Parts: sequence; C-alpha cells; structure tokens
Amino acid sequence: MSGSLYAIGIGPGDPELLTLKAVKRIKESAVLCVPKGREEGTSLALSIVEKAVSLKGKEIIEAHFPMKKTRASSANDVGARHALPLLDAKWNETAERITKRIQEGQNVAFLTLGDPTIYSTFFYLYEKLLKQQPAMNIEIIPGVSSINASASRARISLVLGDEKIAVLPANYLGNLKAALETFDTIVLMKVNKVLNDIVRLLTEMGLVERAVCISRAGMDDEKIIHDIREIKEEELNYFSLIIVRK
Amino acid sequence: MSGSLYAIGIGPGDPELLTLKAVKRIKESAVLCVPKGREEGTSLALSIVEKAVSLKGKEIIEAHFPMKKTRASSANDVGARHALPLLDAKWNETAERITKRIQEGQNVAFLTLGDPTIYSTFFYLYEKLLKQQPAMNIEIIPGVSSINASASRARISLVLGDEKIAVLPANYLGNLKAALETFDTIVLMKVNKVLNDIVRLLTEMGLVERAVCISRAGMDDEKIIHDIREIKEEELNYFSLIIVRK
Repeated sequence: MSGSLYAIGIGPGDPELLTLKAVKRIKESAVLCVPKGREEGTSLALSIVEKAVSLKGKEIIEAHFPMKKTRASSANDVGARHALPLLDAKWNETAERITKRIQEGQNVAFLTLGDPTIYSTFFYLYEKLLKQQPAMNIEIIPGVSSINASASRARISLVLGDEKIAVLPANYLGNLKAALETFDTIVLMKVNKVLNDIVRLLTEMGLVERAVCISRAGMDDEKIIHDIREIKEEELNYFSLIIVRK
Repeated sequence: MSGSLYAIGIGPGDPELLTLKAVKRIKESAVLCVPKGREEGTSLALSIVEKAVSLKGKEIIEAHFPMKKTRASSANDVGARHALPLLDAKWNETAERITKRIQEGQNVAFLTLGDPTIYSTFFYLYEKLLKQQPAMNIEIIPGVSSINASASRARISLVLGDEKIAVLPANYLGNLKAALETFDTIVLMKVNKVLNDIVRLLTEMGLVERAVCISRAGMDDEKIIHDIREIKEEELNYFSLIIVRK
C-alpha cells in the first residue's frame, strides 16, 4: 500500500490559523517535508506547526530549493532554471526521497507557509513528482494566505462588490503605475528591497496615504504601519507586504 | 463586561477547512450572525459550520443585506447606497441587534464564506458598527478563500516566483483583455452570467485552453471543468470562478 503526499498550507504564522484538515493530515504523516532556502523558512514552518500538533517521532526532510532566485522563476524561465544542472539535481533528490517514503507506505506532508497556490515552491516539486510517479496520490490542502491575513489584521476589505484586485511583486514598478490606475486594490509583495521607489511613486500618484504596510501578519512580532513614509528599512523583511486601497 | 464581535472566515465549504481559531471563536459565541440575501447564503454557512461545531442553543441573527446589488457597491457608490433609506435601515437594524448583544456581555460571531476581506458583506456592517460603538472589541479572523481553494482543487499554482495575478468580476470584459495581456494569472469571479462572452474572448486571444472553471470548490457537488467551451450554463452558479493561467 502506497502512502499519500499532502501539500499543506499552514497559514501565515499564527498556529490557530491552521485548518482542521491541515492538523489532521500532519498527524497522519510520518514524514514532514519543509522547504529550506527562504529566509527562516524551515524552522519557522516547523515552529508554527508544533504549537498545534506534536511532531515527536516524525522524520523531517529539508528540501533545499532556490527560493532566492525569484527573477528566474517566472513561467518563461522555467526552461532556463531546469537547465541549471545543480538546481535540477536538488529538486530531483527531494522528489526521490519523498517518492521512496510514499512507496514504503508512509504519508508525507509538504508544509508551506500561507497557501500552496500563492508563491509556494510546492509546484516546482509537484512537476518533478508527477514525472517520477504519475499515479502518486497527491492532495493539495489550501491555507489562509498572508495576503488575506494581512488585510484582516489591518482591518481592510481587499475587494467588495464589483471591485478588482491585483497582486504583484513590488519589483515591477512599471506595471505598478498601470495597476494603480486600473485596480481598486493593489497588493505589493516582497516590498523590503524597493520601498523607497514605492513610496516615491505612491506619493506622485497621491496614493501614499491609501497604503498600509503589514509585516509578519499574525506572528508575535507583527507590525502594521499606517504611514509608509515612516518605515525604516530594517523594520521590513521577506514577509512584508503593502496594500494600497484606492 | 462587554462581549466581542468576531468576523470569521469559514472557508469555501469543506467544514475541515475551518481554522482552529474559527472553531474556537464560534464555540465562545452565544450569538451567530449570518448574512442572508446571497444565493443559499444563510443555510449554507450554518450547514458548513455545524459539521465542525455544535450550534445547539446558539441564537441566530439573520442579516438581510443587499448582496445582489453588486453594481452599486463599489467605493464610489457607497454614498449612493447609503442614500437608499430602506437598505440603510436594514444595515442599522442588524448593527443595533449585534451591539445590544455585545453590550449584554455576549460574544457575536459574524460568519462569512471564504475570507472576510474578499467580497464579504462584513465590511459594510463594520462601518456601521464603528459608528455606533467606536470602542467595540472586534477581531477579524481570516479564512481560506474560495480562490485559493479552487486553485488547490484544480491543482494549479496561482503565482510562482515573480508572477502577477489579477482577480476581477467577470462582468468587466473591457478590463479583461488588458488584464490577460499584463498578468500571468487571472481569476474571474461571478462567471455564471457572462460565460459566453468569456469563452469568445479567450478563444480570440488563444487562451481558452489555459482556462479552467471551478464550481463550488470543496463542496459535495464541486465541479472542475477543464474545457470551458463544454460548460452548460446550468452547471454554473454564484460560486463558480474561472482561472486563466498563461
């Protein structure tokens, strides 16, 4: 009897934002796989989950994924990425370890912060797994994304009625101006590297007072900053986003 | 001692996608408030929740909100909406009932399908409540949105790496073409009324095969339709969305 692979969104950081299904599937899994490479990724995911579920006796597979290379990970560049033999070998190695455990009859839970369909490495792995084991039993379990959690913490409705929302990494400043003109709400991800440019553009467009920055929503050191002109660069990190609500 | 108001995202329909916090707060609330007016809204929200939490002995407040009038609910039209005395009276009536219970020391849980920040009536109520009771203790608890759940069920990554996503109600066909050109992924909400136009536009743009339709993700009668040209109008309802992944 083969086991199953569960790709589990564990939510934004507050252990109480795990779903009932996430807790159940983690309990049913002898093996947990956590992506390593993202800032604090591995230890953070495990430290969130272990506040809700005992991890005693579970095997941990740390998957070393090239999370930092976001520039090379758009759809068009998948070929380029796969051409890099070292990265490709890392992916295959993780996929093989997971496949082995599943063939032995164990369930494997791949833990991902937030939701598996929003900026999660799971889908890179998924592609590899499907190639190695097309018949593998895989269940993707959605979670509370950091976008929704940040809006809740800042008490902002992202969309109401017939409104439109765009989510984009903040390094697309060209797209940002057009998006700000077209959409009712814009969520900027990964703002920590380009904050000054964002503040300048929003000020030019008269929208800087419509922006709020949320860092580490739902975590112990959460910050909500209502005047983004006052942000100090060191307050921000990988888990910071800005919501602009027109 | 005053009670608290909890605005709770109960997820897309599968009771196991309630968060631990949602279950805890519902247990702590003597009063549940559910919006009525959306197709199947009230009975659906309660029927999902009661599979995870006993509702025995809880008071149910049905809030009659003007959900169908989505055209009039954009930010610019809030004034127009508020000018309608009948609707305004309905909102105030619900806000007053909630305020009364909270002043009596009870907790009230406002249940919303999906996530409270994504197309939820909660934020209309929130505005009224803040006016009546600026010091009310309000906690907004994010949930798994139907967008994330639909992508998980269809096994589609919404965004990876540096990709951009737009979410828009399907009746904006003008915006749709521009969005399809700019964004990596587009989620079209409320597609049941304008399906033929969407199929025509996506076919013209050579994108119809990149689209998948998910109806009632995670519910017992969920449907995932990979060729949207084959959809029969009667298969769709308010809870249907289309994901276009370029």
